[in-house]
Amino acid sequence: MQVLKTIEELQEIRKSINGSVGFVPTMGALHNGHISLIKKAREENDIVIVSIFVNPTQFLPTEDLDAYPRKDEADKRICQMCKVDYVFMPEISTMYSQEEVLVKAPNKSYILEGKTRPGHFDGVLRVVLKLFNLVQPTNAYFGKKDAQQLSLITQMVKDFFMPINIIPCEIIREDDGLALSSRNIYLDSTQRHEALLISKSLYMAGSLISKGERDVQKVKDKIYEIMQTLEVEYVAIVNREFDEITVIEPKNTIILVVARFGNTRLLDNIWL
Amino acid sequence: MQVLKTIEELQEIRKSINGSVGFVPTMGALHNGHISLIKKAREENDIVIVSIFVNPTQFLPTEDLDAYPRKDEADKRICQMCKVDYVFMPEISTMYSQEEVLVKAPNKSYILEGKTRPGHFDGVLRVVLKLFNLVQPTNAYFGKKDAQQLSLITQMVKDFFMPINIIPCEIIREDDGLALSSRNIYLDSTQRHEALLISKSLYMAGSLISKGERDVQKVKDKIYEIMQTLEVEYVAIVNREFDEITVIEPKNTIILVVARFGNTRLLDNIWL
Repeated sequence: MQVLKTIEELQEIRKSINGSVGFVPTMGALHNGHISLIKKAREENDIVIVSIFVNPTQFLPTEDLDAYPRKDEADKRICQMCKVDYVFMPEISTMYSQEEVLVKAPNKSYILEGKTRPGHFDGVLRVVLKLFNLVQPTNAYFGKKDAQQLSLITQMVKDFFMPINIIPCEIIREDDGLALSSRNIYLDSTQRHEALLISKSLYMAGSLISKGERDVQKVKDKIYEIMQTLEVEYVAIVNREFDEITVIEPKNTIILVVARFGNTRLLDNIWL
Repeated sequence: MQVLKTIEELQEIRKSINGSVGFVPTMGALHNGHISLIKKAREENDIVIVSIFVNPTQFLPTEDLDAYPRKDEADKRICQMCKVDYVFMPEISTMYSQEEVLVKAPNKSYILEGKTRPGHFDGVLRVVLKLFNLVQPTNAYFGKKDAQQLSLITQMVKDFFMPINIIPCEIIREDDGLALSSRNIYLDSTQRHEALLISKSLYMAGSLISKGERDVQKVKDKIYEIMQTLEVEYVAIVNREFDEITVIEPKNTIILVVARFGNTRLLDNIWL
C-alpha cells in the first residue's frame, strides 16, 4: 500500500493504472461502515483507492471541524488490512486555493440536512468533484447513511455527465442497532443508550409499513412516539428523488430521522 | 465526419478513441476565428471533436438567445472542410434537465463581463464542464477574444483538477482590424465602419506602451480619445489573473474594451 500526499503523485499513479478503479472517499476516523465500503470496492475492482481528507468546506463556521476525530495512523493500518492499493491523504492547501470556481447544490436540496446545514452540500459536492477528477474511478462507494448526500452526488454525476458508477452501500450498525458514525464517540454512556431509540423507531416504522400502513403521518407519529424522550430535529419521509411524500410508496421510500445529543447530531434512515 | 446528437453516441465514440483528442467547443455560426481553432486542433491531435451548441444558460433573460445566429448546415460544411472527425450537436434537452447541480464562477469574476452580464460565466462554466466530461479532451482550444471566459475556464480546470490542457489561441481579425465575432453580422454598414475604432484604439495603446508608457490611466485616456464617438461600455487594463492594475506590466497585461452599437456589444482586447 502506498500513501499519496500530492496531486502530482496521485495523477501519475492514476495514469499508470489500466484496470478498473474502486474509490472510497472518506473523512477518516474509519469504522466498520467505511470498512464495508472498502471491502466491497476491493471485491469489485482491480485497484482500490481510499481518500482520507477532513474537508473544511462542508463544515459550517459553527460546526465541529477542529474537533472532528483524526486517526491517521489507525486509518492507514485499517486500509492496509483491507488491501487498499493507494491512500490519498492531502493537506487542505493541496486541495484548495483562494477564490475558486464553486459547485452549488440545487435549490431543492435546501431541505433536511440542506436546511439545517446551509452550504454543507456545496462543500461536499465540491470536494467530491475534485476527488473524482483526480481519481477518475470506475466505481465510487458511498454509504446510504448519508442518504441526501448520496442522492446529490448521484445527481451531480448525472448532471455533469461524469463516467462514474455510484454504488450505494448498506448502513452498518452495532449489534444493538445504532448506525455507525465517526461522531458516535462524542456520546456519553447515557446518550449512547438513549440513541438506541433512533434505530428502534425506524424498525417500528418499517414494521408498520410491512403490515400495510401507507399513511405518512401515521408512520411519523409512531416514530415521534418512540423517540419522545429525545431531542428530535426532524423525521422525514421522502421518495428516492428526495421529494417529501404523503403516501408511502413501497420500494421508493426513504425514512430519515435526526436527533441531537448535546452538540452531536445523529442521522439514521431506512430505505424501503 | 460524423454528426453526433446524443450523449450515448458521444460517450460510445469517446470510449473507442485511443489517441489524443482536440476539442473546440462553439456556439456555431462558425467564422475564420473558429476555423483557426479547428485547424490548430487538427494539427495537434489524432482526433478532432467540435461541439455546436447555443448554450441557453449563458444568456441573460434580456439577451439575444433567440436571435443568436444559427447556421447548422454551413457549420457542418466548414467542419467537414477542416477534416473534423466528430461534430457534437445536442438539443437543449439533451444537455440540461430540471433543478441541476450548478457551477458558480468566483466572486472576483463579477467585474467587466461578469458585472455587465451577471450569471453569464456560471452558464459558460457549467456547459464547458459538461462538455469536457463528455468529450474528455486532451487539448481544448479557446480564442483569446473572450479573454475573461478563457481565464475562468483555465481556472476551473485547475481548481477542479481536470486533466485537460487549455490552449489559448490568437484573435483572428478582418483585414481592416475588426476582431471576428458571430455578432458582427448585426452591424449595419455605418456601425461596421465605426467599429474599426475599437481595434485602432488597442493598436494605438500597444504602440504607446512599446514606446515606454507604463501609466494605465494615460493608456486608458488614449483609448477613450480614439473611441470618443462610440458608446464605450468599458476599457480595462488587467493582469493575467484579471486583477485591475495601475502600472502596465509588459508580458502580463491584457487591455480590454467593449463598445455598444445599438443592442450589439463588441469585445476586443490585446495581450501584451
